[in-house]
Amino acid sequence: MDHDIQLDLERASRIGFDEAIFCSGKSTPHLARILDQAQDKRLRLLLTRLHESQFAELPEHHRVRIDYEPISRTGFYDSPHPLAGAARVAVVAAGTSDVFVSREAARTLCYYGVPAQEITDVGVAGLWRLLERLEEIRRMPVVIAVAGMDAALPTVLGGLVPGCIIAVPTSVGYGVATGGNAALHSMLSSCAPGLAVMNIDNGYGAACAALRILRGFGSAEAAKA
Amino acid sequence: MDHDIQLDLERASRIGFDEAIFCSGKSTPHLARILDQAQDKRLRLLLTRLHESQFAELPEHHRVRIDYEPISRTGFYDSPHPLAGAARVAVVAAGTSDVFVSREAARTLCYYGVPAQEITDVGVAGLWRLLERLEEIRRMPVVIAVAGMDAALPTVLGGLVPGCIIAVPTSVGYGVATGGNAALHSMLSSCAPGLAVMNIDNGYGAACAALRILRGFGSAEAAKA
Amino acid sequence: MDHDIQLDLERASRIGFDEAIFCSGKSTPHLARILDQAQDKRLRLLLTRLHESQFAELPEHHRVRIDYEPISRTGFYDSPHPLAGAARVAVVAAGTSDVFVSREAARTLCYYGVPAQEITDVGVAGLWRLLERLEEIRRMPVVIAVAGMDAALPTVLGGLVPGCIIAVPTSVGYGVATGGNAALHSMLSSCAPGLAVMNIDNGYGAACAALRILRGFGSAEAAKA
Amino acid sequence: MDHDIQLDLERASRIGFDEAIFCSGKSTPHLARILDQAQDKRLRLLLTRLHESQFAELPEHHRVRIDYEPISRTGFYDSPHPLAGAARVAVVAAGTSDVFVSREAARTLCYYGVPAQEITDVGVAGLWRLLERLEEIRRMPVVIAVAGMDAALPTVLGGLVPGCIIAVPTSVGYGVATGGNAALHSMLSSCAPGLAVMNIDNGYGAACAALRILRGFGSAEAAKA
Amino acid sequence: MDHDIQLDLERASRIGFDEAIFCSGKSTPHLARILDQAQDKRLRLLLTRLHESQFAELPEHHRVRIDYEPISRTGFYDSPHPLAGAARVAVVAAGTSDVFVSREAARTLCYYGVPAQEITDVGVAGLWRLLERLEEIRRMPVVIAVAGMDAALPTVLGGLVPGCIIAVPTSVGYGVATGGNAALHSMLSSCAPGLAVMNIDNGYGAACAALRILRGFGSAEAAKA
Amino acid sequence: MDHDIQLDLERASRIGFDEAIFCSGKSTPHLARILDQAQDKRLRLLLTRLHESQFAELPEHHRVRIDYEPISRTGFYDSPHPLAGAARVAVVAAGTSDVFVSREAARTLCYYGVPAQEITDVGVAGLWRLLERLEEIRRMPVVIAVAGMDAALPTVLGGLVPGCIIAVPTSVGYGVATGGNAALHSMLSSCAPGLAVMNIDNGYGAACAALRILRGFGSAEAAKA
Amino acid sequence: MDHDIQLDLERASRIGFDEAIFCSGKSTPHLARILDQAQDKRLRLLLTRLHESQFAELPEHHRVRIDYEPISRTGFYDSPHPLAGAARVAVVAAGTSDVFVSREAARTLCYYGVPAQEITDVGVAGLWRLLERLEEIRRMPVVIAVAGMDAALPTVLGGLVPGCIIAVPTSVGYGVATGGNAALHSMLSSCAPGLAVMNIDNGYGAACAALRILRGFGSAEAAKA
Amino acid sequence: MDHDIQLDLERASRIGFDEAIFCSGKSTPHLARILDQAQDKRLRLLLTRLHESQFAELPEHHRVRIDYEPISRTGFYDSPHPLAGAARVAVVAAGTSDVFVSREAARTLCYYGVPAQEITDVGVAGLWRLLERLEEIRRMPVVIAVAGMDAALPTVLGGLVPGCIIAVPTSVGYGVATGGNAALHSMLSSCAPGLAVMNIDNGYGAACAALRILRGFGSAEAAKA
Repeated sequence: MDHDIQLDLERASRIGFDEAIFCSGKSTPHLARILDQAQDKRLRLLLTRLHESQFAELPEHHRVRIDYEPISRTGFYDSPHPLAGAARVAVVAAGTSDVFVSREAARTLCYYGVPAQEITDVGVAGLWRLLERLEEIRRMPVVIAVAGMDAALPTVLGGLVPGCIIAVPTSVGYGVATGGNAALHSMLSSCAPGLAVMNIDNGYGAACAALRILRGFGSAEAAKA
Repeated sequence: MDHDIQLDLERASRIGFDEAIFCSGKSTPHLARILDQAQDKRLRLLLTRLHESQFAELPEHHRVRIDYEPISRTGFYDSPHPLAGAARVAVVAAGTSDVFVSREAARTLCYYGVPAQEITDVGVAGLWRLLERLEEIRRMPVVIAVAGMDAALPTVLGGLVPGCIIAVPTSVGYGVATGGNAALHSMLSSCAPGLAVMNIDNGYGAACAALRILRGFGSAEAAKA
Repeated sequence: MDHDIQLDLERASRIGFDEAIFCSGKSTPHLARILDQAQDKRLRLLLTRLHESQFAELPEHHRVRIDYEPISRTGFYDSPHPLAGAARVAVVAAGTSDVFVSREAARTLCYYGVPAQEITDVGVAGLWRLLERLEEIRRMPVVIAVAGMDAALPTVLGGLVPGCIIAVPTSVGYGVATGGNAALHSMLSSCAPGLAVMNIDNGYGAACAALRILRGFGSAEAAKA
Repeated sequence: MDHDIQLDLERASRIGFDEAIFCSGKSTPHLARILDQAQDKRLRLLLTRLHESQFAELPEHHRVRIDYEPISRTGFYDSPHPLAGAARVAVVAAGTSDVFVSREAARTLCYYGVPAQEITDVGVAGLWRLLERLEEIRRMPVVIAVAGMDAALPTVLGGLVPGCIIAVPTSVGYGVATGGNAALHSMLSSCAPGLAVMNIDNGYGAACAALRILRGFGSAEAAKA
Repeated sequence: MDHDIQLDLERASRIGFDEAIFCSGKSTPHLARILDQAQDKRLRLLLTRLHESQFAELPEHHRVRIDYEPISRTGFYDSPHPLAGAARVAVVAAGTSDVFVSREAARTLCYYGVPAQEITDVGVAGLWRLLERLEEIRRMPVVIAVAGMDAALPTVLGGLVPGCIIAVPTSVGYGVATGGNAALHSMLSSCAPGLAVMNIDNGYGAACAALRILRGFGSAEAAKA
Repeated sequence: MDHDIQLDLERASRIGFDEAIFCSGKSTPHLARILDQAQDKRLRLLLTRLHESQFAELPEHHRVRIDYEPISRTGFYDSPHPLAGAARVAVVAAGTSDVFVSREAARTLCYYGVPAQEITDVGVAGLWRLLERLEEIRRMPVVIAVAGMDAALPTVLGGLVPGCIIAVPTSVGYGVATGGNAALHSMLSSCAPGLAVMNIDNGYGAACAALRILRGFGSAEAAKA
Repeated sequence: MDHDIQLDLERASRIGFDEAIFCSGKSTPHLARILDQAQDKRLRLLLTRLHESQFAELPEHHRVRIDYEPISRTGFYDSPHPLAGAARVAVVAAGTSDVFVSREAARTLCYYGVPAQEITDVGVAGLWRLLERLEEIRRMPVVIAVAGMDAALPTVLGGLVPGCIIAVPTSVGYGVATGGNAALHSMLSSCAPGLAVMNIDNGYGAACAALRILRGFGSAEAAKA
Repeated sequence: MDHDIQLDLERASRIGFDEAIFCSGKSTPHLARILDQAQDKRLRLLLTRLHESQFAELPEHHRVRIDYEPISRTGFYDSPHPLAGAARVAVVAAGTSDVFVSREAARTLCYYGVPAQEITDVGVAGLWRLLERLEEIRRMPVVIAVAGMDAALPTVLGGLVPGCIIAVPTSVGYGVATGGNAALHSMLSSCAPGLAVMNIDNGYGAACAALRILRGFGSAEAAKA
């Protein structure tokens, strides 16, 4: 009557994603058992929502094999996919409080070998900060836009940027902004056409959506080559 | 056991507002009886949410005394306060669908003799439209900003305009925007400091807030003079 | 004190989208005035949420120039962009009740000259219907998945399809499904990684998201060429 | 003015359920007093939501008489009903995070002497995992399906399994999935006909519903015998 | 580019349910086309949520083949399954306003040849009405309990009846009861153990759940025989 | 710039209630300062939501003057009003988990010298427990009915008891019952006529409502005498 | 398979209320059948939520026996209980839009022979209107306070009036006030101690609560006499 | 890959507000780094939502330069703008529990050199407390009204005070008042015309709105001078 994870090892071949472990709420023994399995099967893993205190409690021999980043609370178990090519994704965050999410997106892309350009503190309540970085952003075919509270950033971007925009609301804020629904609803209701939206705080998912798109580019490129 | 309105005639002396009649949901006989009372007591009245079909059904002798405007669904019963001075309020609407609310604000100001500058179709999904009108808006000490859906307009204005901004969400939209709560929450959560917010579709209230502020200006000016 | 639309004519050059007119709630005179403007300026327009009764009430000379499709309630004013190439987008609907949304997506793509493969009635409560069409769907780099109620379709697709999936919830259903929030929340919470989500019933937006992505493909291809 | 529980000792004779003690939020002295009463009256009890720390704080002489299982947080006070016959209930969980609920269902069945077949990690985002176990599940007249987030599992099962399906949403997840309402609404809105739904995280209730059904089988069998 | 339904003809063999057509919101031509298909393929169909005015507008040759019942808004297209055996399901409604749902359940059972005992007006605000019918209800292995507003009926039944209880909330009521969420939440939170709950107004689904259970009885009986 | 409470000393003369101090969230120094004021002005005070740990941290000289009861978390500072007459209020709680609220009501009545009859564990999922106590309850002109979860108790009482029923929902429960809104909505929607409802967990308020009613009795009696 | 109401004729003896028929949503034939039954059994009935158009469509011989009042949409079928004594209930409404609810309360009291004092248009946004009527209100042992929107009236009354206050929220308003939840929540959260609250628009229920209280007065008086 | 704040130094020149640091949820090192930057650039800063424990953990050399006030949890880093002129803003709080918000407003005004008159404990459940302070309040051109729960204070003020009223709901309360939405909705729905509303607990924002208004006064005065 134990309770091990059954790692979905064929997912990579089917849809191109490795197993990712959502660590929030998992106990240290549970996490350790997952890493044991990964070690046995020589798998690399992406660990998300791994709180600093959870990381600190892991067995030493696992901890040394994890590349941990505390802001995003992500860890790479064993070496991630090698980075390749120039950045084709911009990860843009409205405020410094949104970085825990935008960094999760950037780290996930990094894990899959996709370089990303991080741009933060460009919320539209201070519009000129965004306009200064606009050309840089417009050059990218995929833009991940992370914002909380009023979440006005993706709407403004949507009117200025021709490429694909993946909007991620954050749970930052208080009062009616608590939990991130105000930001989520603002993004889903955007007057700018064609914004695609993720669940609140789901930087990992935004990166996966970007990866699904880039594969399309890849095959397009491959077809041309 | 009848059911007449008791017009609050002393409100004007106490807080400076005439009686305003919210007509939505009131029957034609009920409205006619209110106008009879106003006629008897030689009052002027502001009629709000007066649907075109309600207006059309009013008795002829009342209808001819009403200055009716169909987009805002407002009527002035008897001559409004005379317009005085240059515009000191900008009424800015994000989209054409928001005009039913912004016009209600402008008409309410007009009823009280306060000229307003209406600016529409400057939603931030097409940012340049707003930037072209920015100097005009910045000159006004009071700005009423009307927007639905993502309601990003007041946030962008809030970072560009030093004066008082009164934000009014509209019920325009579908899906999560239905009813206007997405816009309301976006405005209340704005990253721009010091936006004051009204109930959904409450153009009348926004104008009243502006009037409360302008009275302060007035007394400040009077004190100086 | 009139109230014309200010067509945002430069949007096409900036982000590549023509003006689209959301017709729901607009009066016949208002719509006619917009079409007059389009005629004067020799613009093509995409009309969305144009109810059959609204279409029927338009002036004859406008009506004859509109290619109207009643299920999606879309109209093309003047000839749309010419269709080019093979289908690169699958538009998949779970039930026949969802077709009003999936057709809106397909028609929007069609307006922009992008052929789409429509596949309907493949809801996962009858799983084999989906599996029979799976290879067809997997071949497309972009999949728009439309579903109401439990909205389980995009999750199942997300585990089977490597490409980009744009999920659109519909407002179909009753009880807790009323309005489409159950479907929306199901999609945003999907266990499948990287689903991008649109507002409820927003087939138009899903197509725009697909267009933003395909532009990327285009430029990738162009870069290679 | 004390505050002892009045154990409903006749419930078993009336509807066939022993007293179950929901321990969450109860203090150690309160729990101890309940167990004292059970000891005095020679009752067996099912303890649910008994947190590991609560269990650890119970008096030694009570603790030794409790068969405690930490994942489900259930305890059997004194020997449960003896297990009888082959498994006639499948308890299916979508993900490893849902096991705290599916195990509660399995343990409740076990307490009442009903063997259950536990199957986990068969969420439909990895469809083949479910299809591999399908025949096993189809053989059971009662299936308890536990899932969080999008909760697509019961819908897919509902189209593949002819027997009774009891769906239990879990509170697993973040953003719009927080608290489990997304999963609950997805299950209640399922396109598959005839799914019966329980409150969020209510594995105990799902087992009780299964027991109510099995009694029917029993009496049917008895009537035949 | 037409839009026919693809009748899921194999559903019956897989899970034992015929196609059911949810008619609410479907146009007369759409419904007629579905009936044409059924006629061609010699299928029987259960029509649900078929409003009296929709039924009246159907082509004469279809209308004569439909057994229509206006309270439940259900129709049987061609002869339903023959009724067999004594009633084994009680369909209990709290108030006369709940009958539109309880009758839908009873009619669905009738369509599948399962006789049901309807009992109405036994809401627990007048407790004796229920207690008078209690023995009759207790004899049934499956009880469908339909109630709106406070929905206290299933809780009281749950403490008195040992068999399976399927609770269906109705959308009857005003204020906080509007739409049926108060009733739904009351049922999901019931203090009585093991109530299974359906979506609001889903009498059809409750009958399907009963059918899934009765199949189990059937096979149990068959196994014994 | 300190922040003392301004005890509303005239409230008693105006509406007959002493000052009550809601202690939840108040710091120990803040509470101590309030008690200092009460001591100086020789006031008695009712303390509500005073957590055991808050009570333990109060200065010794205040603590000894407080009659503290931990289940209700209430304290009487200095001697309460003397008890007078027979019980005229029944305080009825559905489950043992609801006693923290029913006891708050009983203690508040006690503070004001009104004896109350407490009856617990009579939830209607075990109906006979209630029926055994019914005559006792029916004799009281005022009944406070406390229940969480489905909150079916007040509805059943409302059909059996002719007197005034004050219903208090509790925040007990999980899933859709979390926070008590399910119970609140169930009570407000009750099919029994004339139930008066309080905010969730507001035992204090229920007692105050009873006191307002009893004053009426008193004056009626006085008028007769 | 017909569907008659089972009039609960013993309710009066048990809890002192006649049958009341909630007419909203009932068809004319259904209502006529109920009145036929009442006629046969020589019952009087209170009809609530009987829309003017429903009343107009009733058979002539029933219509003439109904005392109908259109604002409250109530009807008395056959002579109501005779009025007795001086008014002991004040029914206070904040605005003229709230009268449809306050009148329902007053009419229900009238049906039961209890005279009530109606006071309208005393909303606290014009405080002096209330203060002028305060002494009149304070003299009543029971006050029904009806208000929509901010619902501030009962809070102000609660601090000025020692007697029992039954607060009824109305569904009047728009934006966040739509449906009446803002008013309901405001009343439930009142800072004034001991307000008892009814469901939104439930004037009938408020009157029933008042009747339950007055019965207590009656028996108190009887006991003294 | 570090994560410094980019202080928006030009905001002051554009809209007249210094940078304000929202400290809630920020770690001590993060806050220290922000203060380091401020020190380097010789900026003054307003710190909001700085919990006492956060303040205590700051490096000594920063702590000594902060004027900290614990009730409002605000800190002034380096000397604030000098106070000038008589108070032109009243900050009015309904209860002592609302002071954490009203003090935040008063402190923000103080930081910007604007004296404010704080008035607390004037909730309208004890109306005379407010009426005693009314003249004082009416003299101010701007009134910030802070209230939780029923939030009736701003409505009463709105009918008595001619100047600008900025209403701030607080998160004080339990049950339906939890989180402050009841208060927010009550304020947005106020029957008093022209109340401007802020997000829940946003005393800082209310002060910023007042500052935007006072700037208008200032320029009006300047224009006159």
